[in-house]
Amino acid sequence: METFNNNEHPHRRYNPLTDEWILVSPHRSKRPWQGQNESVSANTLPEYDPECYLCAGNKRSNGVQNENYSDTYVFENDFAALLQEEVRDETPQSDLFQFKPERGINKVICFSPKHNLTLPEMEVEAIQKIIETWKTEYIELGSKDFINYVQIFENKGSVMGCSNPHPHGQIWAQSSLPTQVEKTQKNLKDYYAKHQRSLLKDYIEEELKRKERVVSENEHFVVLVPFWATWPYETLIVSKRHFGNITQMTQAEILAFAEIVKIITVKYDNLFQTSFPYSSGIHQTPTDNKEHPEWHFHMHFYPPLLRSATVKKFMVGYEMMAEAQRDVSPEKSVAILRGLPDVHYKA
Amino acid sequence: METFNNNEHPHRRYNPLTDEWILVSPHRSKRPWQGQNESVSANTLPEYDPECYLCAGNKRSNGVQNENYSDTYVFENDFAALLQEEVRDETPQSDLFQFKPERGINKVICFSPKHNLTLPEMEVEAIQKIIETWKTEYIELGSKDFINYVQIFENKGSVMGCSNPHPHGQIWAQSSLPTQVEKTQKNLKDYYAKHQRSLLKDYIEEELKRKERVVSENEHFVVLVPFWATWPYETLIVSKRHFGNITQMTQAEILAFAEIVKIITVKYDNLFQTSFPYSSGIHQTPTDNKEHPEWHFHMHFYPPLLRSATVKKFMVGYEMMAEAQRDVSPEKSVAILRGLPDVHYKA
Ligand SMILES: O=P(O)(O)O[C@H]1O[C@H](CO)[C@@H](O)[C@H](O)[C@H]1O
Ligand SMILES: O=P(O)(O)O[C@H]1O[C@H](CO)[C@@H](O)[C@H](O)[C@H]1O
Repeated sequence: METFNNNEHPHRRYNPLTDEWILVSPHRSKRPWQGQNESVSANTLPEYDPECYLCAGNKRSNGVQNENYSDTYVFENDFAALLQEEVRDETPQSDLFQFKPERGINKVICFSPKHNLTLPEMEVEAIQKIIETWKTEYIELGSKDFINYVQIFENKGSVMGCSNPHPHGQIWAQSSLPTQVEKTQKNLKDYYAKHQRSLLKDYIEEELKRKERVVSENEHFVVLVPFWATWPYETLIVSKRHFGNITQMTQAEILAFAEIVKIITVKYDNLFQTSFPYSSGIHQTPTDNKEHPEWHFHMHFYPPLLRSATVKKFMVGYEMMAEAQRDVSPEKSVAILRGLPDVHYKA
Repeated sequence: METFNNNEHPHRRYNPLTDEWILVSPHRSKRPWQGQNESVSANTLPEYDPECYLCAGNKRSNGVQNENYSDTYVFENDFAALLQEEVRDETPQSDLFQFKPERGINKVICFSPKHNLTLPEMEVEAIQKIIETWKTEYIELGSKDFINYVQIFENKGSVMGCSNPHPHGQIWAQSSLPTQVEKTQKNLKDYYAKHQRSLLKDYIEEELKRKERVVSENEHFVVLVPFWATWPYETLIVSKRHFGNITQMTQAEILAFAEIVKIITVKYDNLFQTSFPYSSGIHQTPTDNKEHPEWHFHMHFYPPLLRSATVKKFMVGYEMMAEAQRDVSPEKSVAILRGLPDVHYKA
C-alpha cells in the first residue's frame, strides 16, 4: 500500500471556519481542457470613459451626477438588493415556510477616479485611502440601529459578474447576520469558548511556523493559501494581532494591510499577466453592539481562474450537489504564488 | 408602514434541507444589465461527430474505443477526481489541520449515441432507459464496501463547465458522505426524529394544497420551484410516495419520473428557446448499509440563467462572503415556467 502524499492522492480537508469539508484531487490538473474559455479583459482602457457611470463628473442612469472626486467616492447603489424601509408582516409562518422581511443599505465605493486603475496598480497610499473609506462606512452604517452587519466586498472582472471595469467595490449592510457569516461566527465562538483564544490567531501561528502555505507577510499581516482553500488560488489575509474589526486597527496596521493587499493583487495579476478576476470580502465583528471576543479580522480572496487567463474552475454538478472540489493541492498553488514577483508586470 | 408583499419587498427565506437562509430581492429584476454575456450553444449539431470522444465507436484520449452502443453507455472517467486505491496515512493531525484520504469511483454515462439529442428532446422511453442505468449503477457501486455514497449528476451546457455537448451525465461514488449531502441528511433526520414523518413528504403535501409553486405533477411525482429556491429557475422533483432511493421505485414510478424529467427540461428549453444549461443531481439514501427512514428521493435542477439565453445570475462577492441572493421571487419564476408549453419548441 502506498503512503499518503497530499500532492498526489485524493483527500478531503476540513475548513474550521465553515465546518465543511472539501475534496482535493491533486492529480487531476493533468486533465486536458476542451470546455468554455473566458474572454480576456481589454488590456488598454482609457483613464476616463465618457460612457462610464462611475467616472467622476459623469451622469448615472438615474440622472444623478457623480462628484468630481479625486480619491474614493461613495454613493448608495441605484439598484440596491436591500431597502431601508420597514414593512409590516403578519403572514402566518410554519417550519417549512419560514421567511422574514429584511432591511439594509447597499453602497458602491469607487476606488479611484481613474477608470483603468485597479488595486494592484495603485500606490499604497491610495489603497490606504480605500481602507480609511471602508472604516468610515463601517462606523457610519454600523451605528444605525437596524444595521447589525456590514459586508464589504469587491467583484473584479466580468467573469465575477462585475459589469463595469472602473475600479470599485460594494458594501451591503443589513439587519440580520448573513448565512456564511453566522456559520463563521459560530465556529470562531465554539473555538473561543473551548480555548479562550482566537481560532485564526492559533491557525496563523502554526502556519508561520510551518511556512508551507504562507505567500507573504509583514509586521502586522500574513497572506496565505489556507489549508482548506477551495478555489485554485484562493488566499486569506489575517491580522497578526487578534482584533475584531477595522475600527481597531492602528495607523501602522492600516499601512501594513494596504501593503499586503497590494502584494497579493500584484501577484495575482502577474500569475497569468492579466487583470486577475476575483471576489474578495472582509469578515469582521457584526455591528450588533454585543461583545465578540471570538472575531478575528480577515479578508478572503476567491479567484475563479484555474489554468490560464481564460480557463476557470467550474463549481458545478458535483460541487453543488455534494462537495466543493479542487484540482490542484493548495501547497502547489502557494509555491506558484510565492515565486511570482511583487512588482506588477506592467510596471 | 407598508404591508409585506413577497413579490416586492426584500426578505430572507429559510431552506430546511440545508439549514441556511437566502436573500430574496424581488424588486431587483428591474436592474439594467451591462455585464458579461454567455455565448449561446450552436443550435445545429450533427447526429455524429467524428471528433467527439463520447460518440459511439470513437476513440477516447487514452486510446480506448467506445462500444457501438445504442442507448446508454457507461465507462470509468478517464480523468477521475477520485481513485480506488487505498493509501496508508500516518500524518499527525490537529484541530485546524484535519484531512483524510478519500477513495471513490467516477463514471461517465452517455445518455444516447446521438451527439445532438439532449434529455428534453428524447422520447420518454429513452429517459426511462437512463433511469434504469442510474439504478444499475447505484446498486453496483453502492454494493462495494468502500462506497458509502453515490452522487448522480449532470452538467449541461458550457456555462456549467460541460466540455462536450454530447448528452451525458456523471456519477461520483465515494467512501464519505459529502458535505452537502451530510447537511441534508442531518436536517431530514432531525425532522424525522421530531415528527416521525418525511420532511419532503410534509412539504410537498402543503405545496400541493397551496398550488403556488407547483410547476407540474403526475400520479407519482411533483416538480416545483421550492419556497427557498436560490437560482432564478431552480426546481425540485420530489416523489409523492416516501421512499429513499432509486431501487425502491416501481415500474410505474420510473415511467412517471421519466415523464416529469422530460416536462421540466422541455419547459427549460422553451423558456429562452435555447438548449437550457443547468446542473442537476439526485439526492437519495447513502449506501452505507444503515437504516435511513429520513431520506426521501429527490432531484435538484440548478440552472444559471436569469434574464435570457445569454445573461446568467452571478453568485459572487456578496453571495460567497455572506448569503445566496436572488433577484426575482420564486413565485414569479414558477408562473413563467408553468405558462410554458410541454412540447419542445423545435418539435
Ligand atoms: O468532469 P468534467 O465534466 O470534465 O468537469 C466538470 O464537472 C466537474 C464535476 O462537477 C467539475 O469538478 C469540473 O470543474 C467541471 O468542469
Ligand atoms: O451589484 P452588481 O455589481 O451589479 O452585481 C454583482 O454583484 C452582486 C453581489 O455579489 C450579485 O448579486 C450580482 O449577481 C452580480 O452581478
